[in-house]
Amino acid sequence: MRCDTLWHNANLMTLDDASGGLGTIVDGVIAARDGRILYAGPATTAPAFEADTRIDCNGRWISPGLIDCHTHLVYAGNRAGEFEQRLQGVSYAQIAKAGGGIVATVSATRQADDAALIRASLPRLDAMLAEGVTTIEIKSGYGLALADERKQLRVARELGVLRKVEVVPTFLGAHAVPPGHEAQAYINEVCAVMIPAIAAEGLAEAVDIFCENIAFSPAQAQQVFEAAKQHGLAIKIHAEQLSNQHGAELAAKHGALSADHIEHLDQAGIDAMRASGTVAVLLPGAYFYTRETVLPPIQALRDAGVPMALATDSNPGTSPLTSPLLAMNMGATLFRMTVSECIAGFTREAARALGRAERLGKLAAGMDCDLAIWDIDAPADLVYRIGFNPLHARVWRGQTI
Amino acid sequence: MRCDTLWHNANLMTLDDASGGLGTIVDGVIAARDGRILYAGPATTAPAFEADTRIDCNGRWISPGLIDCHTHLVYAGNRAGEFEQRLQGVSYAQIAKAGGGIVATVSATRQADDAALIRASLPRLDAMLAEGVTTIEIKSGYGLALADERKQLRVARELGVLRKVEVVPTFLGAHAVPPGHEAQAYINEVCAVMIPAIAAEGLAEAVDIFCENIAFSPAQAQQVFEAAKQHGLAIKIHAEQLSNQHGAELAAKHGALSADHIEHLDQAGIDAMRASGTVAVLLPGAYFYTRETVLPPIQALRDAGVPMALATDSNPGTSPLTSPLLAMNMGATLFRMTVSECIAGFTREAARALGRAERLGKLAAGMDCDLAIWDIDAPADLVYRIGFNPLHARVWRGQTI
Ligand SMILES: [Zn+2]
Ligand SMILES: [Zn+2]
Repeated sequence: MRCDTLWHNANLMTLDDASGGLGTIVDGVIAARDGRILYAGPATTAPAFEADTRIDCNGRWISPGLIDCHTHLVYAGNRAGEFEQRLQGVSYAQIAKAGGGIVATVSATRQADDAALIRASLPRLDAMLAEGVTTIEIKSGYGLALADERKQLRVARELGVLRKVEVVPTFLGAHAVPPGHEAQAYINEVCAVMIPAIAAEGLAEAVDIFCENIAFSPAQAQQVFEAAKQHGLAIKIHAEQLSNQHGAELAAKHGALSADHIEHLDQAGIDAMRASGTVAVLLPGAYFYTRETVLPPIQALRDAGVPMALATDSNPGTSPLTSPLLAMNMGATLFRMTVSECIAGFTREAARALGRAERLGKLAAGMDCDLAIWDIDAPADLVYRIGFNPLHARVWRGQTI
Repeated sequence: MRCDTLWHNANLMTLDDASGGLGTIVDGVIAARDGRILYAGPATTAPAFEADTRIDCNGRWISPGLIDCHTHLVYAGNRAGEFEQRLQGVSYAQIAKAGGGIVATVSATRQADDAALIRASLPRLDAMLAEGVTTIEIKSGYGLALADERKQLRVARELGVLRKVEVVPTFLGAHAVPPGHEAQAYINEVCAVMIPAIAAEGLAEAVDIFCENIAFSPAQAQQVFEAAKQHGLAIKIHAEQLSNQHGAELAAKHGALSADHIEHLDQAGIDAMRASGTVAVLLPGAYFYTRETVLPPIQALRDAGVPMALATDSNPGTSPLTSPLLAMNMGATLFRMTVSECIAGFTREAARALGRAERLGKLAAGMDCDLAIWDIDAPADLVYRIGFNPLHARVWRGQTI
């Protein structure tokens, strides 16, 4: 059989569903044609391939390319100064009063033009790619006005043109109440004006909302979900991060792709997520950075069979994290997720959280050929170490980058 | 005035003692000759230099090269499998019974020859250098027999030949009781045989001991300190990590360079450290990785004016961390150290913990010209971000590497 590229002498993490874990294959082979996987499996049972390019992996491990399914990567400004002040004892309230916090990022993002936003965001994206990321979700939510939200989503799309990576754009107009606005009036505008415009322009695939006592109510979330569905957009939610608002349950009942954070999720929420197949997206970077002490209900999610993804939540306020590998270690160290769960959380389950389970996140015939090739002894190495990047090569749509 | 290299159009973190903080200089200049700093200060007051090489830093920030003053970088074997098992619920006791834990590292390190140890350790060292490290302390302690301890120290020295970095070797024979030995008999051998041999060969500058209820007693530490002093070696201690053994106080009374970990340190220990100028070396990576909940007494150390350094504690069991920048962030996030304290902890104070305050860790005339040049807006960026490396260039003894 003819193929473009054949990777051989490799060990594979196929993430095969049936395995329940990583689906590892020792001495495996991957064949790709036209950017897709033709075969991924044991060398012993592989068809005879006639390959244009043969790549000897020298016993390295290959996983699906990493998928970061929750980021706020596109923004301008720098909040390191605020971080510094907080360490010196300045309170959140004082910082907010002085124009800091999310308002500072909104203001800087509004002032930046497309080129400046790209310039600010590319180093963060490049850090992700250097760790084997091949698909990344990017949310808006620092514009909080139609023109600026459109700009953020346009820039997200442009990043996917400038780099070999699949960008999945999410509209998060309902991230915060913009300065000078009233919450309900703003949500009405999100639903009546912004969602229709974003959908018409094809600038986002999904709509997200920050449902929390310091942000938007479940009733407002419901309004947003209905508008999203009306315009054919998928649904996501920032839920139960600081308190139990029953937002995940509500989102699940609307068929949400994912409910994210969920430190304060209860059993009713878990049951609803299981029933709808909603993915739990866990964000240990924010947990670490904000010194949260309430853990997400990992064991209950596991017991219920709710799929669990992991993501960086890369954002300037609560998780300035651009390392998926570190997020995996934090998933294990802080949340006691297993090695298999951490790796699946950045591959198979992350693909599911983005509605791409049929095409990404596994090594199997028919899937897009997005690979990460690692200089490691065993899959556990990806999770065990901290602050070390063993990526050997990144492959996107069959091409080594 | 003639110089080899002039870095101009730069912002400096001089770490000048008098500043009490970072000693920042906007629009600064550094001039170097023969590997040493001739001038580091404001451009406006700089002498006129005639430079062989002029480097325009385009407004980047320059700090002293980073100094990691506490690592166990040289070892063989891989304990990721043990990490994986623990996440699946296997207990420490079961792992130890199956030959895991430190015994696994000792066994693998004993079996490795010099070349294999170098091969295993170089990627870890390279990860450090990639973040601007120019000096690194490396402890033995996985040999636990003279020949194997000598091998570890020889390899540490060899790493400093293979890479442009200053390696500071520390003898940690008293790391654990070797399998099949009795603690007191082993300490007697450490003092009567190993320390004299290591000292005679010039293989280490300092002697360290793990003083803890699961390791060696204060009485044994005292015995080791006396042997060290007899042979002209400096003193360090792993103290008060799991319980208060009053080891730091004892070490301080023997003039120790540093007492490291010190989560359970009390006021008497703090007072003794202040009196002797012993540096508190804080290790947030191990605190994070072992899910410790007792914080070191940062505010009391600060109030007492005890110098505080930060280090990675890079080791395979409790801190497989090879990122000084991440250790800085953890110092801030977990220990609430300020930005200045975190950066000083990897420069000026780390130099002090290694007895090199006169030569390293600051940008000042007469110091070795070891620099880290950063693509950042402000010093706080080094501490604020997680999993991102903004190093632009590393300079060792005046040479850009
Ligand atoms: Zn988020
Ligand atoms: Zn140590």
